[in-house]
Amino acid sequence: MSLAPGSTIGIVGGGQLGRMLAMAAARLGYKCHIYAPDELPPAAEVAAGFTRGAWEDEAALADFGREVDVATYEFENIAAAPLAALAAQVPLHPPAEALAVAQDRLNEKSFVAALGGSPAPFRPVNDRTGLDEALAALGVPAVLKTRRFGYDGKGQARIMRPSEAEEAWASVRGAPSVLEAFIAFDSEFSILLCRGSDGETVIWPAPSNEHEGGVLRRSRAPAEGLDAQVAEAEALAREAAEALDYVGVLALEFFATSEGPVFNEMAPRVHNSGHWTVEGAVTSQFENHVRAICGLPLGATALTGAWVEMDNLIGGAADGWAAILADPAAHLHLYGKGEARPGRKMGHVTRVFR
Amino acid sequence: MSLAPGSTIGIVGGGQLGRMLAMAAARLGYKCHIYAPDELPPAAEVAAGFTRGAWEDEAALADFGREVDVATYEFENIAAAPLAALAAQVPLHPPAEALAVAQDRLNEKSFVAALGGSPAPFRPVNDRTGLDEALAALGVPAVLKTRRFGYDGKGQARIMRPSEAEEAWASVRGAPSVLEAFIAFDSEFSILLCRGSDGETVIWPAPSNEHEGGVLRRSRAPAEGLDAQVAEAEALAREAAEALDYVGVLALEFFATSEGPVFNEMAPRVHNSGHWTVEGAVTSQFENHVRAICGLPLGATALTGAWVEMDNLIGGAADGWAAILADPAAHLHLYGKGEARPGRKMGHVTRVFR
Repeated sequence: MSLAPGSTIGIVGGGQLGRMLAMAAARLGYKCHIYAPDELPPAAEVAAGFTRGAWEDEAALADFGREVDVATYEFENIAAAPLAALAAQVPLHPPAEALAVAQDRLNEKSFVAALGGSPAPFRPVNDRTGLDEALAALGVPAVLKTRRFGYDGKGQARIMRPSEAEEAWASVRGAPSVLEAFIAFDSEFSILLCRGSDGETVIWPAPSNEHEGGVLRRSRAPAEGLDAQVAEAEALAREAAEALDYVGVLALEFFATSEGPVFNEMAPRVHNSGHWTVEGAVTSQFENHVRAICGLPLGATALTGAWVEMDNLIGGAADGWAAILADPAAHLHLYGKGEARPGRKMGHVTRVFR
Repeated sequence: MSLAPGSTIGIVGGGQLGRMLAMAAARLGYKCHIYAPDELPPAAEVAAGFTRGAWEDEAALADFGREVDVATYEFENIAAAPLAALAAQVPLHPPAEALAVAQDRLNEKSFVAALGGSPAPFRPVNDRTGLDEALAALGVPAVLKTRRFGYDGKGQARIMRPSEAEEAWASVRGAPSVLEAFIAFDSEFSILLCRGSDGETVIWPAPSNEHEGGVLRRSRAPAEGLDAQVAEAEALAREAAEALDYVGVLALEFFATSEGPVFNEMAPRVHNSGHWTVEGAVTSQFENHVRAICGLPLGATALTGAWVEMDNLIGGAADGWAAILADPAAHLHLYGKGEARPGRKMGHVTRVFR
């Protein structure tokens, strides 16, 4: 059953991902309705409707649910209960189960390991003693990460020496966490997959990614010299999507190592490392996500050029828009966020090389 | 002086052209504010703001003017006086003079002829006697067109025999008109130009166009076998833009004939025959229009493939969206218009051939 153009898509979350989803949906003739706690979220500026409410406000979320024909989310740190209530009201894609897996690092790693994937060696850490035990098992260097509510490098502490355990534990404020062995990697890449409601699955050429301080700086597609690792990672991504009966775009991040691809994390949504697909692929991740959640056939994912490069504009970098526009082939994207705080993703720029 | 992203662009007109302009503007970080008489215009669904008002309502237009930093229009049948009032309030691009020329067929043809261009032979017709005189001068077949408020074949009557003059005159309801000699043409093409506020001018590869019943059905770029005629038409378009001190996208339509390009009409705005530029050119007509009116440098206009085809979806044709989406390389655009009335432009589909 497909949802006809003219119907209303609800998007939980009002950031740049929601903004780009809303524009892709509008192009296909859908109306969008945004749910977010902010007064003027970037996505609401390009959407037909907006309900302002806190993430955990079930009454506001129910009001939102009454306005929409299908719902999706662009923000993964939402509690399970309000989202389950929404899913009882309208079709919700990707499924809440995918969110439950992805928003908890322990669930996520266990899920991937059960499918035969290779996360970095990890141990759950529930208290200070548990951290010492995990360090003894995994050695240093290692990374302590909160199980939930981490993104863009937040909620993480690197432990280079056992003596740093105390400080790391303080930095996660005693939250349930996971200790991961530090992985020596050559490069990073991600798999961007979209699965339709009929199980049809498409995968974009994998981008290689560069992070700084836990934040994505640059993606380049296709990733070079990683064909075997990408193929292995693609197979894992397909299995993950199948297992979750997934509908929509799913992103999995990997470290390329001498021993093969090591799973890092997954996101049950459109992903920053797929922003290049707007100009660099026949169909963007945003459009295919919309197609999937509306039960439409998926669009082609081939590159539109020989290779594509996407640079994030973080904090003050967005102030350089004039210089970026001076390159007639640069595709500038600004998200309409007011204040360019340090570390804040303000926009990105894509270049397609033909 | 360029207008920084984050500023608000006012768009007079709320149809699909405004909708696509608003999305291009949002991508660059601008807010858009729509002015239109309709309750729920397609453009307002993707814009941050909307003022509802009649075209001639100067008070409402002044309210709109207070909300925006720069204004443009996507609808050319607006009276000069309200637009002049708006131009006194905020920068208005393209200039009102361009609109004054383009919205009157007599002015338009005279303007182009004065630049050395070749419109079809024409005579002004102000009364019934004038029509007979014009028919005697130009012969039949000929086309009687109202000077103002014509678009998509509306306000036109073909005269095959002198005896049809009476009926033609009745059909234009006695409005000031122009009689044009009928042109035997091989094909049609258009020139899509964008001129920046510093005079920088870019031109997209010219599309060939097919009309049915006065309505564009298909554009294909680049137009084939017309290099010399296209070059001549491009030179005329550049001169026209210069003469008007034009800022923004300007479209000129031509008939390709054995005697060279014959000017048909111009539109001081983004144009249906340029919709293929969204996926088929490095920079779309919508983005370059936004760049121009904001005083930014213009983007590249090269094709992204070997050739590009755009088919309009008129009336019930938009109901075929499912079949269109079954082609994974088709780019579907639906405008969010409620009712698929016969002849109404509901969307378009673009295919890029690589």
